Amino acid sequence: MTGPERGDLADPAVRRARAWLSRAVEPGSVDLWRYVQREGPVAAAAALRAGTAPRRVQALAGARAGQDVSLDDLRRADRCGGRLVVPEDGEWPAAPLHCLVLAVAAEPEEAGRQTERTRVLVPPVALWVRGDRRLDELVDRSVALVGSRASTAYGEHVAGELAHGLGERGWTTVSGGAYGIDAASHRGALAAGAATVVVAASGVDRAYPSAHSTLFARVLEDGLVVSEWPPGCAPLRHRFLVRNRLIAALTRGTVVVEAAARSGAQATAQRAAALGKAVMAVPGPVTSAMSVGCHELLRDAEGRVTLVTSAAQVLQEVGALGEDLADPAARPETARDGLSDVARRVLDACPVRIGVVPERLAAVAGCDVLDVLRVLPALELADLVQWTGTGWRLAPTDAARS
Amino acid sequence: MTGPERGDLADPAVRRARAWLSRAVEPGSVDLWRYVQREGPVAAAAALRAGTAPRRVQALAGARAGQDVSLDDLRRADRCGGRLVVPEDGEWPAAPLHCLVLAVAAEPEEAGRQTERTRVLVPPVALWVRGDRRLDELVDRSVALVGSRASTAYGEHVAGELAHGLGERGWTTVSGGAYGIDAASHRGALAAGAATVVVAASGVDRAYPSAHSTLFARVLEDGLVVSEWPPGCAPLRHRFLVRNRLIAALTRGTVVVEAAARSGAQATAQRAAALGKAVMAVPGPVTSAMSVGCHELLRDAEGRVTLVTSAAQVLQEVGALGEDLADPAARPETARDGLSDVARRVLDACPVRIGVVPERLAAVAGCDVLDVLRVLPALELADLVQWTGTGWRLAPTDAARS
Repeated sequence: MTGPERGDLADPAVRRARAWLSRAVEPGSVDLWRYVQREGPVAAAAALRAGTAPRRVQALAGARAGQDVSLDDLRRADRCGGRLVVPEDGEWPAAPLHCLVLAVAAEPEEAGRQTERTRVLVPPVALWVRGDRRLDELVDRSVALVGSRASTAYGEHVAGELAHGLGERGWTTVSGGAYGIDAASHRGALAAGAATVVVAASGVDRAYPSAHSTLFARVLEDGLVVSEWPPGCAPLRHRFLVRNRLIAALTRGTVVVEAAARSGAQATAQRAAALGKAVMAVPGPVTSAMSVGCHELLRDAEGRVTLVTSAAQVLQEVGALGEDLADPAARPETARDGLSDVARRVLDACPVRIGVVPERLAAVAGCDVLDVLRVLPALELADLVQWTGTGWRLAPTDAARS
Repeated sequence: MTGPERGDLADPAVRRARAWLSRAVEPGSVDLWRYVQREGPVAAAAALRAGTAPRRVQALAGARAGQDVSLDDLRRADRCGGRLVVPEDGEWPAAPLHCLVLAVAAEPEEAGRQTERTRVLVPPVALWVRGDRRLDELVDRSVALVGSRASTAYGEHVAGELAHGLGERGWTTVSGGAYGIDAASHRGALAAGAATVVVAASGVDRAYPSAHSTLFARVLEDGLVVSEWPPGCAPLRHRFLVRNRLIAALTRGTVVVEAAARSGAQATAQRAAALGKAVMAVPGPVTSAMSVGCHELLRDAEGRVTLVTSAAQVLQEVGALGEDLADPAARPETARDGLSDVARRVLDACPVRIGVVPERLAAVAGCDVLDVLRVLPALELADLVQWTGTGWRLAPTDAARS
């Protein structure tokens, strides 16, 4: 087994059972996942092999139930520097994937009423991982950059800039390894010397598209290639749809960089929103067909998609939440702590949303308007307040914290 | 007096008084507007001339109270094909400007606590208008296109396309007659053979910038030049800020086409939002400094700014509202009326927001899933439902109507 210190490791029988399940049943099945949860992976695999699983679950495996190449699969992964990560491992990214556990709870019991397999938000049974880094650590602070394969030079430039900026700030870029926006994103992260993760729709031992074998090799130097499918599996068309939910689930948020109208990237974004993840889109020229999908997302009636133009704005969407979750007690001393009495009163007088004029701030703070005008520049420099064009209000980050 | 059939006309003494007031007191004063409302224009002008108005109002006129060139101003307007339109005229755009009447009601009585004069949302005392069309008719279905003077070729192209598209659909483009986005907007409207309105910060007898005198002449062939300032007045810097509220108020909505960070166009947009008008922005390349202001607006935390990429999308924001206000009884027969019973049940089963799968539609509609699959294509062609990427839902326009 290759890889770094991986913390607690699952029982070998569990890993073997999940390796078998990952090949016996095509990923994305609610019924299989529930059966494995109920019976445990070893008993579930044994029952399926013996043909004694409930009829509906048994049907998912079909003829594959009679085959067992799990040991070969595990060896094949090992030979290419890969491994199988299972939920019983310390390395399993349980926190990011929990959104899928929640989502599958909403699926009906009756198979006929469940969301179709390629669209259903179900957790993976196991993940084949290639590369030396720990999966849970790499995806903890990660963002998905997705978009069209038929991207423009503009889109590739922006994808590269975003990934580079995220990498500089210690964040991992996750994408699908495809042509266009995916490749530009991975390359941008690599250029910043940052880790990047390819979530593939084929086995981790093969690069798809094959023209990207050099890119995958560079990704593997300090990043990971991840897949639900065992080594050797081909990137069948429907597998991309199943794979896309994993990109959304593993990351803190998804940025659509370029997308044509009604494209797959939009579907990924909508799935990310359904999982409670941040969804962002990059605008572009209204004259570009490759920005139509992004603009459609940004016109989303529910206002769930945020316009972003820089890595800093992406982190504003996903970062604040992360810091809150990580350790609220360890929050560093804020700029607010060093303020004078007048400055603090003026700051407290600033509204969260609609900016107000200094006269009103003075009235609310109970001080002279000249005092207000004197302290406002310092408050603005400290990023505590901002000028809206018609008045002063709290800067968004401060408003979110308070 | 030039101009077309203008409906009811104000008393000449009222027009003369308002002409005098428009020169005696710099436009944009809450106190003057309230005084004129209370006393009537003739009495208010007489008191100011006699020096017997309340001290605060008298101070607004200052030395100008002793002069009277109102007859000269009216003659000068007449000579250039202009006139003074007053609230007592049938041509006064009372409906669009009513938002300013409402806004000024929120201003405090004490002068010291009022919004500064260049920012205050106060109705005009009168409007100098040049051109043959009726002002109220032209602005009834109008949209403001605003943006940077230092625009890019991209921005000018989009402004021209939007104005052209609005003009083709019978809508008037209103802008400020400046270089850049303003000029491209007026030209786009003219190219469609549509009326366009310049709201100027100088007298209507002079073109500012002077390089636009040919453009203004073309505007006047079938459109209007409007100003709060009497003939001969210069476009002083602060007058643009006062003028901008009028662009926002006269129109159904404001589209920011290109704007630098923290620009005047953003301030105009925020004022339009404060007046309850639709506010829209055109996205552009994130690499363009001239789109930064638009992107800032679209990132507005309050979500009041809608991304638009075409004239059709602009009219979706301002048109539906307009039709509702105009005559709800005259609403045309909808596509819905011709539907079969099954189709109507399926339509009723479609949720407004989150798309659902055909199986769920069948369950809610109480029919077979094959029936659902049979009627969905027709419903989509009729623009009644839409595919979200994960399911079917009501098309936004239908949802807004129902």
